[in-house]
Amino acid sequence: MNILEIIEKKTKGEELTKEELNYAIMGYVNDEIPDYQMSSFLMAVYLKGMTDKETIDLTDIMLHSGKVLDFGFDSIDKHSTGGVGDKTTIVLAPLMAALDVKMLKMSGRGLGHTGGTIDKLEAISGFQTNISLEEVQKQVEDIGVAIVSQMGGLCPADKKLYALRDVTGTVASIPLIASSIMSKKLASGASKIIIDLKVGNGALMTNLEDAKELARIMVNIGHLNGKETICVLTNMDEPLGNAIGNSLEVLEAIDTLKGNGPKDLNELVINLGSLMLSLDKNMPIEEAIEYVENALEKGLGYEKLVEMVAYQHGDIDNIPVSSKKFDIKAYQSGYIKSINALKLGELARKLGAGRFAKDDVIDQTVGFVLHKKVGDKVLKDEVLITVYYNEKDLPLSDIFDCFEYSDEEISKPTLIYEIIKKENL
Amino acid sequence: MNILEIIEKKTKGEELTKEELNYAIMGYVNDEIPDYQMSSFLMAVYLKGMTDKETIDLTDIMLHSGKVLDFGFDSIDKHSTGGVGDKTTIVLAPLMAALDVKMLKMSGRGLGHTGGTIDKLEAISGFQTNISLEEVQKQVEDIGVAIVSQMGGLCPADKKLYALRDVTGTVASIPLIASSIMSKKLASGASKIIIDLKVGNGALMTNLEDAKELARIMVNIGHLNGKETICVLTNMDEPLGNAIGNSLEVLEAIDTLKGNGPKDLNELVINLGSLMLSLDKNMPIEEAIEYVENALEKGLGYEKLVEMVAYQHGDIDNIPVSSKKFDIKAYQSGYIKSINALKLGELARKLGAGRFAKDDVIDQTVGFVLHKKVGDKVLKDEVLITVYYNEKDLPLSDIFDCFEYSDEEISKPTLIYEIIKKENL
Repeated sequence: MNILEIIEKKTKGEELTKEELNYAIMGYVNDEIPDYQMSSFLMAVYLKGMTDKETIDLTDIMLHSGKVLDFGFDSIDKHSTGGVGDKTTIVLAPLMAALDVKMLKMSGRGLGHTGGTIDKLEAISGFQTNISLEEVQKQVEDIGVAIVSQMGGLCPADKKLYALRDVTGTVASIPLIASSIMSKKLASGASKIIIDLKVGNGALMTNLEDAKELARIMVNIGHLNGKETICVLTNMDEPLGNAIGNSLEVLEAIDTLKGNGPKDLNELVINLGSLMLSLDKNMPIEEAIEYVENALEKGLGYEKLVEMVAYQHGDIDNIPVSSKKFDIKAYQSGYIKSINALKLGELARKLGAGRFAKDDVIDQTVGFVLHKKVGDKVLKDEVLITVYYNEKDLPLSDIFDCFEYSDEEISKPTLIYEIIKKENL
Repeated sequence: MNILEIIEKKTKGEELTKEELNYAIMGYVNDEIPDYQMSSFLMAVYLKGMTDKETIDLTDIMLHSGKVLDFGFDSIDKHSTGGVGDKTTIVLAPLMAALDVKMLKMSGRGLGHTGGTIDKLEAISGFQTNISLEEVQKQVEDIGVAIVSQMGGLCPADKKLYALRDVTGTVASIPLIASSIMSKKLASGASKIIIDLKVGNGALMTNLEDAKELARIMVNIGHLNGKETICVLTNMDEPLGNAIGNSLEVLEAIDTLKGNGPKDLNELVINLGSLMLSLDKNMPIEEAIEYVENALEKGLGYEKLVEMVAYQHGDIDNIPVSSKKFDIKAYQSGYIKSINALKLGELARKLGAGRFAKDDVIDQTVGFVLHKKVGDKVLKDEVLITVYYNEKDLPLSDIFDCFEYSDEEISKPTLIYEIIKKENL
């Protein structure tokens, strides 16, 4: 067996055996296959795809390239494929814990124009995310919830491959995304998995058809590994909620936990939360919705967040936002037809809210707050968006370019496209 | 501009601008773009192809990545895309010089299972191929012919790209082959270019359709650069001539120059030689054929070879062949239906005639001599092939596997498929 034969087989669109995939992936992990051969292989996979069998085998190889955790208690993992303004995990983890669903959540940092939950939580002064597994397990047993950085030693193959994909134009491949997400989820010890699969111009998946295909294979992989997996396909054409940027998003998550969240984020939290609760407690979905709505109304999740932040050494009253800000006003009246999530995400990154290189330091205090969303009526000179800036500035026209107007009424976009479970595959 | 955007554009099958190609290629040459990004780009090109404009631009970028020679006299370059048993250059260069066509020929070393003219000529004891441009020019002015190694400083971009393609499964791409060959040919200073494009299982191009496409784009590139370029598509399903292996091939080239060459090699030499002569002297092809046939009959080219070898410090009487040999006999009677050039080339490499790693030392003394070719009648126990071996041995069955028999008569294969010139594009 040699890597050139494996690459050649893939360029011809033939199915690789598990032995061949293992030779390629583990050879790369063990530094026997160099970057330049692996990137050629990844591009061949990117353009030629993989069969389900190959994707399942690849996931299994990456899953077993490192430690596989087992917490010793039932828990649900909620994963988002990443979008702009997506602070859902910061709302859902404490909310679920308040409803007696154990949440040991490992999250990542920002990638490209999408933010990462860990970066966001670090906007809370003192908040620690780099915690040993023993401490995290104790924390979840004590208070029911923890959100921490991805543990070292899990899926080293995925880690190494992902870093290479990120710099070789091979990220947006369905089999590579599916195996990357599922190997990490399966290694992370949760017993059930809910994936919020973002679809739209601000997400990795830009069309519904590809997203459904990705969901299908991930649900299959989860079930093949004995873990119930559900994918919820949700809209990421406009940003989620109103806030974009680390501190601003944490503050919006707090508002939501107190029952004052923006409409779309609130709707998503109720949908995903009730799904998780019904899954964990084997409870009818209608009953679960009632529990979740009640918890939001009473601020039970907020109390749990306060508990979690304290446990992880953070100061919930100290989430600094830049004092430098300006409002951008509509230059015409009409209805908001679109708000470009991708562009706003990129602009937030330019403001300092995200990284361009691995070692960039994030400015937690900057970002945007939207005052209008798609479908809203807007009058000339009404505030569209507030920009929180600090050291870096932006040309106004770039922000204007993110908004499209219409003279005619625009209906509110669909937030949840589809829920994909094993039963309906 | 950045390399990830360029890679992404290519994965979508869009046409790259010359600026984008230049950014990618020269960035790689200047070590600003790493191997792993270039190999991802090359695989995208391999699978998505290039438009003619891209291929022409790429050639131009590689051509101007280093020195571009100008000899100060008219000359013809003859290039072969490489096959098994291909010693044509060793015959043609002195033969043409004997007919007053100046031949300053830069050749390469063996690649994969195909041999290289420079490796072959080094089978002549003392023969020097690494000579400065000034010395080579003087030699051609003195005796009309020189065969030397590729000069340093020509097409560094092609050199670096080729080395990467060789280890990333991206060799067999028409636009990459076309730009690699043509940039080198255009930089090498000859005024006219004849390319012997090998087609068949022992060649880079395995089917006629791809070969025609490659020929078409190379002829176009040559003409766009003001150099008449002709591609001759020739058969490489069975080895060319009878000898495979370095010393053995030089000896067969000498026999051919003396008028005693094997039928197919002789035919190829007459065809290519007359084409070159008519091109250089603006002479009708029928007249050129007469000149070439006459020169072969009289051994004029052999005298020129003796002169060239002496000039380059070689001893024409000292071309060592291994004394260890054995004959392989036919195990049945019939007609030879096929002789697998690729397999025989690989076996010759295993005997030591070629390299597996860049630094392997070649054994010049080993190889094969065929006693039967496709279409020949063979009786049981007649000798099929003689194996010259030395330190490395081969299993007999591997050699038997290279031959297929038929009970029915088999016609001699076509040697020359097509001549592709600018006029008939």
